[in-house]
Amino acid sequence: MGERVRLSDEQRLDWLRLIRTENIGPRTFRDLINHYGGARAALAALPALARRGGAAGPARIFSREEAEAELKTARALGVEFVALGEPDYPPRLQMIDDAPPLLAVRGKLAVLMRPCVAVVGSRNASAAGAKFTERLARDLGQAGFGIVSGLARGIDAAAHRASLATGTVAVLAGGHEHIYPAEHVDLLEAILREGAAITEMPLAWEPRAHDFPRRNRLISGLSVGVVIVEAARRSGSLITARLAGEQGREVFAVPGSPLDPRAEGTNGLIKQGATLVTEAADVIAALQPILGPGYDLPAQEPAFEGPGPLDVEPGDDERARITGLLGPTPVSIDDLVRLSRSTPAIVRTVLLELEIAGRLERHGGGLVSLL
Amino acid sequence: MGERVRLSDEQRLDWLRLIRTENIGPRTFRDLINHYGGARAALAALPALARRGGAAGPARIFSREEAEAELKTARALGVEFVALGEPDYPPRLQMIDDAPPLLAVRGKLAVLMRPCVAVVGSRNASAAGAKFTERLARDLGQAGFGIVSGLARGIDAAAHRASLATGTVAVLAGGHEHIYPAEHVDLLEAILREGAAITEMPLAWEPRAHDFPRRNRLISGLSVGVVIVEAARRSGSLITARLAGEQGREVFAVPGSPLDPRAEGTNGLIKQGATLVTEAADVIAALQPILGPGYDLPAQEPAFEGPGPLDVEPGDDERARITGLLGPTPVSIDDLVRLSRSTPAIVRTVLLELEIAGRLERHGGGLVSLL
Repeated sequence: MGERVRLSDEQRLDWLRLIRTENIGPRTFRDLINHYGGARAALAALPALARRGGAAGPARIFSREEAEAELKTARALGVEFVALGEPDYPPRLQMIDDAPPLLAVRGKLAVLMRPCVAVVGSRNASAAGAKFTERLARDLGQAGFGIVSGLARGIDAAAHRASLATGTVAVLAGGHEHIYPAEHVDLLEAILREGAAITEMPLAWEPRAHDFPRRNRLISGLSVGVVIVEAARRSGSLITARLAGEQGREVFAVPGSPLDPRAEGTNGLIKQGATLVTEAADVIAALQPILGPGYDLPAQEPAFEGPGPLDVEPGDDERARITGLLGPTPVSIDDLVRLSRSTPAIVRTVLLELEIAGRLERHGGGLVSLL
Repeated sequence: MGERVRLSDEQRLDWLRLIRTENIGPRTFRDLINHYGGARAALAALPALARRGGAAGPARIFSREEAEAELKTARALGVEFVALGEPDYPPRLQMIDDAPPLLAVRGKLAVLMRPCVAVVGSRNASAAGAKFTERLARDLGQAGFGIVSGLARGIDAAAHRASLATGTVAVLAGGHEHIYPAEHVDLLEAILREGAAITEMPLAWEPRAHDFPRRNRLISGLSVGVVIVEAARRSGSLITARLAGEQGREVFAVPGSPLDPRAEGTNGLIKQGATLVTEAADVIAALQPILGPGYDLPAQEPAFEGPGPLDVEPGDDERARITGLLGPTPVSIDDLVRLSRSTPAIVRTVLLELEIAGRLERHGGGLVSLL
């Protein structure tokens, strides 16, 4: 995956089968490909891995027929699957460690190659918030940025609408066949004329509550910076801000009156160090130094140092010791390595086996727990 | 002035004569007292100094009779004159380099001994701004802070009203006989019950536009921190914020919507590094480390190093050279020292003579110009 070459049709089919297989997340996908050298070999190895991880039954692998059907539907919808490492894959998104192996893209791919800024905020936006969002997204769009948002009501919709002409990206929490909210189907069609809609979910996936925070990592991952316009305390936009910080993206927030509950979250972000934004120039000034020569760097697979997971073979007692350290309370992988006195590669191998067996949950910040 | 002793009645009279004399500002007053050892000796030296500075006519010195009349009126109004260095002089105010030699105080002196926070803002405050101000001033007052403000309409009045019970300080731009705005005479009476009103101006002084920025240095000088609640671009509150920064005071600002012109100034302050405030706890958290053991430090005259102005005698050609470097454009005293190749003490002596002669204007930041 180090070189930016296109997958063959056969390889793309295998990639789709592997990522659609139960319990295979982006990180596990990457570990498997790195170890086995390709998706086909990884698919062949899955039953044995699941057995070693203590799976309740046989591994439920996404079939060739299912994959062919999804690819056919995709073609009919105008959806392209772009693979991690391919030239069309958004370069910044490729840098995050849980980048989707396959992105389902509708619309113009070109907008994904431009430096993007995410503009997000509360669904029940105030009139002032929506108006400010329009001004900001329009000015950032005219300055050359693609505008990324989540197609939600309120701030998101205002950000998309103001950047239809310059290029905007809607990141979906569900599949391309399930636009949410349904009232934004027309907005989405308008977005596709100069921009794009992307998702990592299967075409027919109906988004549920926990799909939205997962989706938010793509909004920030695509972007050089994330602007939060209005956000109540404990709102989804604050999750996007946190993910952006973890991904090393710039976090911007729009201030508001302390008496306005829709400004509680954004004022809080500024207290924590987010850059205060009152106009597009604030965002541009902060991003210019980052974009200068850095933007066009070819996105490369991060080089792994030392043996990766599956490059080593844990002994049975080692596997039992590591599994025994796990429980329903999330613990860090670093702690597991320390407490098990195993190597990181061994611990990651055992975790990968558990994940494929459907017994592991990965949380943010390198935390894992047993299901 | 190193020890905190009270002036005798005779000394206080001389201090009042000296500070009320034309062209004598707080810095010049301090230089004169330091050199001549007292106000009486300084008064005696004024005619010669004015002559050396090239005064147009004889020095117009505030007479003993005028001073006695002002002291008598003061007693009738319940105004006390507190001198720099006396135990009742507000300790933080004493630290600024242009602290008034005499403060005319009405009300309770005790509030001036407490740590104070200034709460200021625009006169045409929004309802939300006034409401937030009340909450903030009440909470800071209950936390033990004296609340300092400027008795203006809008934010200032709201800050005073909310801290009447805990203690608030009105800093006047005019004299105690000229309360501005007149509609706040009743508010002032309420302030005096637990708080105080102070000014450096003569009792009968009617405030003019340029007296307000001058007054603002006392608002910040009295305070550990200054909170700007609402401020348009280029408003007086921003002058107070700048002075607070120059005096080493903490600057706080309350955010607002980018679409609200009354938040332009405060959002700008936050961009420049002011601490964002949405509740009293933000102010208290920032000030606690400063106040801890530091607050009760006995305020001392700053020790002067080396010879001061008037400790040296400039030669006529030196005086001419320094005066020749001055013009209507403000220049820094540091530049004058460098360009004249004189010592700082010589330059300050010549400037002091020019000031007493009414030919010098002092600007902020150590800048001076010829009138």
